Amino acid sequence: MLNRSDIAAAACRIAPHIRHTPVLRDTGAALGLSFPVVLKLELLQHAGSFKPRGAFNRLLCATIPRAGVLAASGGNHGAAVAYAARSLGIPAEIFVPTLTPAAKVARIASYGAQVTQIGEAYADALAASRDRQQETGALEVHAYDHPDVLAGQGTVGREFELDAPELTHILVATGGGGLIGGVAAWYAGSAAVVSVEPEGCPTLHTALREGRPVDAPVGGLAADSLGARQVGGQMFPLARRFVSTAVLVPDEAIREAQRRLWDSFRLVAEPGGATALAALISGRFTPPAGARVGVVLCGANTDPAKVAA
Amino acid sequence: MLNRSDIAAAACRIAPHIRHTPVLRDTGAALGLSFPVVLKLELLQHAGSFKPRGAFNRLLCATIPRAGVLAASGGNHGAAVAYAARSLGIPAEIFVPTLTPAAKVARIASYGAQVTQIGEAYADALAASRDRQQETGALEVHAYDHPDVLAGQGTVGREFELDAPELTHILVATGGGGLIGGVAAWYAGSAAVVSVEPEGCPTLHTALREGRPVDAPVGGLAADSLGARQVGGQMFPLARRFVSTAVLVPDEAIREAQRRLWDSFRLVAEPGGATALAALISGRFTPPAGARVGVVLCGANTDPAKVAA
Repeated sequence: MLNRSDIAAAACRIAPHIRHTPVLRDTGAALGLSFPVVLKLELLQHAGSFKPRGAFNRLLCATIPRAGVLAASGGNHGAAVAYAARSLGIPAEIFVPTLTPAAKVARIASYGAQVTQIGEAYADALAASRDRQQETGALEVHAYDHPDVLAGQGTVGREFELDAPELTHILVATGGGGLIGGVAAWYAGSAAVVSVEPEGCPTLHTALREGRPVDAPVGGLAADSLGARQVGGQMFPLARRFVSTAVLVPDEAIREAQRRLWDSFRLVAEPGGATALAALISGRFTPPAGARVGVVLCGANTDPAKVAA
Repeated sequence: MLNRSDIAAAACRIAPHIRHTPVLRDTGAALGLSFPVVLKLELLQHAGSFKPRGAFNRLLCATIPRAGVLAASGGNHGAAVAYAARSLGIPAEIFVPTLTPAAKVARIASYGAQVTQIGEAYADALAASRDRQQETGALEVHAYDHPDVLAGQGTVGREFELDAPELTHILVATGGGGLIGGVAAWYAGSAAVVSVEPEGCPTLHTALREGRPVDAPVGGLAADSLGARQVGGQMFPLARRFVSTAVLVPDEAIREAQRRLWDSFRLVAEPGGATALAALISGRFTPPAGARVGVVLCGANTDPAKVAA
């Protein structure tokens, strides 16, 4: 099982390529909260989300075939793999579903990757990418279910603890579970790691209830970034052991979190990037008295006109 | 002349009300630069710019008349005074010119202040506000030319030095000069403070050439935030002593800086907020070898659709 040493090693490996994103401490008042929060501004990462951490760690650990790399993605992982591949001089081919917003498709193409838009949701694009992988022999860079990807994403937790060691509760949005798996492995019980999922994509919530990763619905506002059909098998044991609870939030709370981040911080968060905060705003997660709460804002790849509306 | 003790005292006074904004270290590559930069993310401040620092310090130092406070502004200072007044339970009346963007007028009104849009540019709104002040007896909160306002803005420099003590060059946008006056007073020659002004609003550049504050043109992309007709008399001695150089940038460089901040950081900066960075992107300021460069990103009150376009 992934541990802190793996994550520390990943941090060292990817340091030249990623941003150590800052934290912002706030009283919470501007967000309508009665307690302070520390926001991890991971939406300022290269390629607009946390995903380059896992992508770089995976690419730097692997032997890259001549055909390069290949990935399926709702959009952010694809952008990250395209960005990392370009940085390292590797050809990349990315498969995204039709629900991927135009802004994300354009972003992936801007990094010089070949993009194919196919299938309804992430899982369909994944299936198409695997057919293609059989033809080309390219390295598959899974969006979340690989130890090197998990270790890379876990560096978000490492930085958050370095910069805000006082935190007792860390809220993280979950889709396929790469980010929360890595963060949970980093904290390993030393802080409560809370999974926040949209009601439309309850992947970890469902898996924890059923005792194993199972298919969950894929829908709602954040489906392009959190719409994996299942959490990964690699992260599930970590979640069982180190994720303290999994809460669901309605789309309206996600939209409200986006709105407040813009109104009060001038931050543009995509729906998946605002989902963790939505748990506090909606009251779906209420921290106990004396808790010191951190929230990972993990992605910004959206049309800002929608956020400011 | 304003000094570090005044600024340290201001920092203490306003601490409960403002955000200590974070810094972001970057290799510069994503901005097209061949050297690293440290960005001070002051655009994440309450009310969308650095202005609440000066506004709070002024209000907390003054005896407030029953009529409350009154300010003239291109927009950001008005929003800050309205925000601070609401926080402290003081009535506020704000005068803005017709060039103030709708987003800023709406922001001021959203804080419960009474807004009057009058005159072409900031100086005209200032004149109107002074007529009104004679009627009501409200306290005038000048947008830049007051020691308490300068001391408040100087806390940006104090935080920047605390968080990035290695910096040798600090780039700051100048309009009326409150921000750079305060920042220059803080560094007091221990780092080179560089003024960056749009070619359309060369306030400090002109004043330094003439040896005193004189009228300068008011025009171009950033006129709503940097379009003072003159720098303040309070800041000018500080600038003469502690501002190392004043460079001018074309509007196209400001727009390009906005674009790169969005593309690579997902940060929304208004034209005035991106002006300091524009000096690096345009090559109008080239740091010497070995310099460690900091840039203050000071405002975000703009329509984000314009930035991402």
